[in-house]
Amino acid sequence: MHDLRLTAARVARLATTDPDGRPHLVPIVFAVSGGTLYSAVDRKPKRSSTLRRIENARARPDVTVLIDHYDEDWSRLWWTRLRGRARVLDDGVERERALVLLAEKYPQYRESPPDGPVLAVDLDEVRSWSAS
Amino acid sequence: MHDLRLTAARVARLATTDPDGRPHLVPIVFAVSGGTLYSAVDRKPKRSSTLRRIENARARPDVTVLIDHYDEDWSRLWWTRLRGRARVLDDGVERERALVLLAEKYPQYRESPPDGPVLAVDLDEVRSWSAS
Repeated sequence: MHDLRLTAARVARLATTDPDGRPHLVPIVFAVSGGTLYSAVDRKPKRSSTLRRIENARARPDVTVLIDHYDEDWSRLWWTRLRGRARVLDDGVERERALVLLAEKYPQYRESPPDGPVLAVDLDEVRSWSAS
Repeated sequence: MHDLRLTAARVARLATTDPDGRPHLVPIVFAVSGGTLYSAVDRKPKRSSTLRRIENARARPDVTVLIDHYDEDWSRLWWTRLRGRARVLDDGVERERALVLLAEKYPQYRESPPDGPVLAVDLDEVRSWSAS
């Protein structure tokens, strides 16, 4: 995972699968380490969709993540699509390590660390496209 | 569909479902009119994924579209998630009308109009979230 565009991106979109089979989509902040992508949620969600992604990933771990760049100069468009198997880390060392990575990347997390589960996605497919 | 943030957004992400059941994700440019979201593709794709979204939508028309705003000030985050049934317009009046809408929104399309099918998504669910 040495794609600088990928690791430097501030936001990605995570697709999971709802119980009825329809795709579910949320924006996520994330960190990547050693072939695994990490994303955290708060335990005290004001909305069901925070947990929806977690419950979806538990039930159907095949998830897709998209990182893309939009530019009005369409010759500068690019995207990277990641596929992998999700694991939900409710506690433990790997979750703690992921929270450190996320806080290193996002100062916002240093002030108020997320207190919910961490979604770990073991990446098994990376596909990139660029307009130029 | 009077959400200005929605109609003004320049890019969205479209989730369809692959034949193997995994979610598929691509960034799209789009226009919304009368409860339907339109997105076009070129007929001469250099990559299979341009057609993948179309073939996915033909086979499983339940698709999800996410429009979101990222900001380093996380109190300014928002997203809107759209769900609907997709129709593939290979030709016809509605396709032509969609191409006009897209060209009105995107000057890039005026120079080189997309010559492939248009994906029409009849929206049946709009869910919005905002951090503030």
